[in-house]
Order: sequence, then structure tokens, then C-alpha cells
Amino acid sequence: MSNGLIIHGGAPTAVINASLYGVVKQAEKCPQIKKLYAAIGGSRGVLNRRFLDLKSVPQAELELLPFTPASVIGTSRDRLEPEDYAEMAEIIRQEDIRYVFFNGGNGSMDTCGKIYKACLDAGTEVQIIGIPKTMDNDIAVTDHAPGFGSAARYIAGTVSEVCRDVMSLPIHVCIIEAMGRNAGWLTASSALARDAGAGPDLIYVPELAFDEDRFLADVERVHRTKTGVVVVVGESLHGRDGKTIVEPVFQTGRSVYYGDVSSHLANLVIRRLGIKARGEKPGLCGRASIEFQSETDRNEAVLVGQAAVKAAIDGHTGVMVGLERVEGPRYSVQTTLIPIEQVMLREQVMPSEFISGAGNDVTEEFCSWCRPLLGGPLRRFAAI
Amino acid sequence: MSNGLIIHGGAPTAVINASLYGVVKQAEKCPQIKKLYAAIGGSRGVLNRRFLDLKSVPQAELELLPFTPASVIGTSRDRLEPEDYAEMAEIIRQEDIRYVFFNGGNGSMDTCGKIYKACLDAGTEVQIIGIPKTMDNDIAVTDHAPGFGSAARYIAGTVSEVCRDVMSLPIHVCIIEAMGRNAGWLTASSALARDAGAGPDLIYVPELAFDEDRFLADVERVHRTKTGVVVVVGESLHGRDGKTIVEPVFQTGRSVYYGDVSSHLANLVIRRLGIKARGEKPGLCGRASIEFQSETDRNEAVLVGQAAVKAAIDGHTGVMVGLERVEGPRYSVQTTLIPIEQVMLREQVMPSEFISGAGNDVTEEFCSWCRPLLGGPLRRFAAI
Repeated sequence: MSNGLIIHGGAPTAVINASLYGVVKQAEKCPQIKKLYAAIGGSRGVLNRRFLDLKSVPQAELELLPFTPASVIGTSRDRLEPEDYAEMAEIIRQEDIRYVFFNGGNGSMDTCGKIYKACLDAGTEVQIIGIPKTMDNDIAVTDHAPGFGSAARYIAGTVSEVCRDVMSLPIHVCIIEAMGRNAGWLTASSALARDAGAGPDLIYVPELAFDEDRFLADVERVHRTKTGVVVVVGESLHGRDGKTIVEPVFQTGRSVYYGDVSSHLANLVIRRLGIKARGEKPGLCGRASIEFQSETDRNEAVLVGQAAVKAAIDGHTGVMVGLERVEGPRYSVQTTLIPIEQVMLREQVMPSEFISGAGNDVTEEFCSWCRPLLGGPLRRFAAI
Repeated sequence: MSNGLIIHGGAPTAVINASLYGVVKQAEKCPQIKKLYAAIGGSRGVLNRRFLDLKSVPQAELELLPFTPASVIGTSRDRLEPEDYAEMAEIIRQEDIRYVFFNGGNGSMDTCGKIYKACLDAGTEVQIIGIPKTMDNDIAVTDHAPGFGSAARYIAGTVSEVCRDVMSLPIHVCIIEAMGRNAGWLTASSALARDAGAGPDLIYVPELAFDEDRFLADVERVHRTKTGVVVVVGESLHGRDGKTIVEPVFQTGRSVYYGDVSSHLANLVIRRLGIKARGEKPGLCGRASIEFQSETDRNEAVLVGQAAVKAAIDGHTGVMVGLERVEGPRYSVQTTLIPIEQVMLREQVMPSEFISGAGNDVTEEFCSWCRPLLGGPLRRFAAI
């Protein structure tokens, strides 16, 4: 009998605690796992030996995990040095930890891979399994990652509500900024608002170079035919020169706070077109929202947590759990195991067939791919 | 038998359609009301004679009204000229309209009062009743107005979720901007996030002059004791000179789009304190959110709609329905009738006993006043 350890890395999502729940519940069934430690505060928590024995957490609190946003055990995004990995391997050996679960995005999978290598180098036998998580959906190989479906539901649902507001006042032009670093998955998911009867008029993802003149021409054209134009843009839009259209507010390593693209573009519309415009930036509200949590996303988050424990007990190591769609008339997934080096720091952006030819919308193919991840239809509103 | 007319004015809320529902359902019970018209697109809709007979709307759609955000019959915020009121009085006479219901904020109550006067001047006998509505809660005399409770629940709930996110990563300083024109009610309601276990550290309402140096000192002090500082600020913060700290983006009459206060202050924290900070501006998302709709708010919105019809049938005119708390151990309200000239363009700001002495928080007295309007406790999350 040995101990288990779970570590959270990178930004939280609406379902990261649901994966934690999956790990805890599966570990309970495994006599091989003596104690299940959580590192408090991510990798930094391991280095500081801040461990919590999850078996000491009351059952009632555990049952709330799938419905609790953010990371209840903390997380970190610190840049680690080579000696940190060696130290972690040593701590893992000292604490008699045999099973390591690392829940994170592609940056965290890089850390996970490096811990794996450090343990190998030290001759410490461990089963290290990655658990995918990202609201951005930019992890490679896996069809999608837990965290994305809920954030997509938030964006689609919120944009649908804002569209109704904007059409009823009317507010002329409203520009909503969606998160997603270099990938437009979340921005694109706003198209699903149309399923609820009111969706965005224009969508610009960061996969394409953004041209302010073409954007203004698009807005002006739509504004001629209707009041209340709604535009959804990615936070990291950049021009043909590769530079973001608004300078990032803060950047350290992979951690970036982008500038206010929505407000920049709203001001552009006011100044250049003389049309009333306003920008909205829900930002963090979107990844922490339990009201818009997708049931499918939550269930899949639990599933990958369980699968990680099963894989570890089965002797797998150096792999990340992935999700793959099962062919058939109804949406369903199965878990896979992906060698971790295939996902380390590799960013998955939207394929071109998901972006409309004119570059200001997404395709029906994207919508069909994305729809099941939202976990059920959006709310229906009165049509008068 | 004569006809009824309902008009929506100003910005929509999460429950304006709930009041419409109240009017429709009460009117169904009144044989005195032949047709019930909705003006499509607010006062402008009356002038353009864009009327919809609400009795033609299918029952299934009507039943969705209390749960549908924005205004299903549109609204407007146009500045009207004196001759417009005379023309409206004439249209009301021609269409055999005896009962006029005007749902709006203090700007709309001004319009309502002027239509009332124009009808009096023209010798047209009408019962004109105002129905209160505002997310800002700045209507005078009434204890509070429908629309506020839901927006307050949105801010409290969302801030509570964001606090967990910010504490778990940690994000150092996060500044969330709340709407509310010159009144801090909504900004203040973020304090209720604390009921859910995680709330803001600092709250700045626009009732007090904002001092950037004191703000920075406050942030620095809190940051020394904890990671993940959350600050909630009103969109219209102004300095001692009365000027907003960020120039408004757009202003026409009473319609103002404030500048991005959250992003301005986040940049100030980065530049002056060297601490990582980010701003969030959920803006319109907050007033259109059905997920955070307060049940109490929805019920009261229906109630004031019904009360308006009853008052009109009883022969009242030139009054607005108000809400007043009934003394007792449990929260309950009753409707009142307020002479419309008492509310026309009068703005109700927060009393000083609701704002903390240091000017960077609210008092428990405010929380006790606000709590019942949220319509039940916020979601409980796991405590690990």
C-alpha cells in the first residue's frame, strides 16, 4: 500500500472540483491507495509540503465538490526551475507516494511530464497520470477537455440573454469579449446562442488575423439592417503583424492578462462610425459560473478523474486521460490514454473548417461539434 | 368598455416582463378592459402607432414571460418633445384607451407624468399608472423597485464565485465593476456574497467622492494580509471635483455609457503598486440574467403589475405603484400608490447609514435591508 497525490495546475474552471470528486470516489474503491493527499496551492504546495489528506474531508462537503467552482485545493501557475522537479521527485519518494494525479491544461501537462521524468531519473517508481482541464479547450489530441463545455454554455447563454437586452432597448452595438488565450473555441461557442432564438451577428476568433477596417465595414453593414448589433470577440485578437490589437496588461511567462479588446473596439465603432457602442467583459465570471455549468461537462469531469485512478492502478504512467467521441446517433464519449509528451505545451486551435469563409462567423460544422458539450438546450424564452 | 395600453421605458431588467405578465393576467379579470395593447418599442412605439393586442399572444408564450429577460415588447430612451406628449394624448383618445400603464424608472416616470398632464390638458379621461422598474434601485419613495433584487442577486452570486476563483489561483487583485448610474445600491449588494462564504474585500459606491490614493492604500493593506483581493466599484465613481474618474464613453441626455472604471483601476494598481491586477465588467450580462433572477423580485414584479391594473380600475390616476415593507418578523411587502410628481426624475441614492465610516465598505444595516430582496440564500459551496 502506498499513498496518492492530486495536484491542480493553472486557471480553475467550473468543473475542476468535479474531477477531484472523481479521483476521490475512485480512490475510495482502491485498497492500493492508503492516503490520498491534495497539494494545497498547486505544484508550489508540493514543494512547500502543504498536503491535505482528502480522506479526512467530511462526506457532505465532498458531495458538494461537483457543484463548487474554482479549485477548493488551490492551484498555481508559477514557473518552476529544473531543481524544483528533482525536489518534487524526492518529496514524492519520502511521502511514499506511488500515484500522482495532475489536473491541468497544456502548461500543467508540461509540468506533469517533467515531474514524471524527474521521478524516472531518481529511480522512483510512480504512476503519474494527467487529467485534462481547460476552459479554453486548447489541449491537443483529446476531442475536448473538461471545463470547456461549462464555459461554452456560459458564453452561449449569456450572449443569448444580452442579445435580447440589446435588441429590446436598443443599444446599437454591443461588443462582448470572450476568454481563450490563443484559441477561439470559447468565442466561437457564442454561436450556440442562436439555438435560443437570439445570437451574435458577428464573431471574430483569434485564429485569423483581425482587420479593423473589415470589422468596421461588417458592423456598419449589419447595423443598416437591424438595431442592436451584437459582436463577440476573442480577448487575444491580433493583427496581420501578429501583435495583439490591444497591448496585454500584464504578462509573465504563459500567464497573460489581455487588454480590454471589447472596450477598444466599442470606442473604435463610436469614433469611426459615430454609432453608440459599448463593451462587456465578463472574464472570470464565465469560468466560475455554476449556474451555467454544463451537466455533460460535469459528468465528463468526474469520468476523467475516475479514469485517471483506474489507469494508475492498472500500472499506466506518463499518460494523460483524453476524451474521444464514440460513433453513433447520440453523443457519447469514452476515455483514452494519451502519452503525455503529445500534449505538453501543445496548443490546439480551431481548424479552418470551423471558421466561416468571410472570417466573421463560425460554421454549422462547428456548432454540431460544440452543441452536445453544452449539456442540454439553453433556456427557452417567450416569443411575442 | 375601453382599451388598455402598456408601455415600457428605459433599460430592461430581468423582471420587466414579469410585471407585464402581472398586467396581462389582471387585465384578463377585468371586463372593463376590452383590448390590452402593448406599445412596441416604448413611447416611440406609441407615436408610431405600433400596437400589439396582448390578448392575441398564445397562452404558452405568456406563461414564459416571468422567466424571459429584456423587454419582449421593446422599450425606448428617446428624448421626447412637448408636442410628442400632445400627440400621444391624441392617439390615446383615438384608440379609445382609458387605462395606461407605464413601466419604467425615474426617467420613465417623468414621461408618464407628462403624458398624464397632456391627457388632462386635452380633456381626455384616462387612468395613468406608473409601474416601478430599475436595476439601479434609484426610484424615490418606494422601498425598492422590481429589477433591483435580481441584479443584486447576480452581483452577489457572481462576486462570490469570482472570489473563489481569485483566491484559488491566486490572481492578486481583481476589480469588478457594477452598474448603477449615480446610485451605489448594486455595487453595495456585492457584500451579500459574504453570506456564501467568500465576498469582496473592498466596496466603493458612487455616493462618496473617490480618492485614488486612499483606494491604493486600501488595496495595498489588504494585499499584505491575503492573496486574491477582490474589489467592487460603481461604474460612475467620481472624484472630489464631481467629475467621473474615467470619462464617459457616450452620453446623450440621461443615457450614459460610463468608461471602463474596472480596467482603469486595475491599471492603476499595476502601475502604482506593481501588483498583478485585472478588471471585469459584466455590465449588461447582470441585468439580463435569468439564472440569477430573484424569486422575490419576480413575484414582486408580478404584484406591482397586478396592482397597477387594480388601481386603474378603481379610478386612480397619476400615481405610481410603490412597495413598502410590512413590519414583522418575516420580510413581506404591500403595494402603495405614490403621486407621480414625487418620483419624476428624483433619484434615490444610498443613505449614509448604509455606507461604512471608512468609505470602503457597506454596513450590516444595509445587508439586513438588502438580504431578503435576493430571494433566498445563495448557493452553498464545498468547504474543504
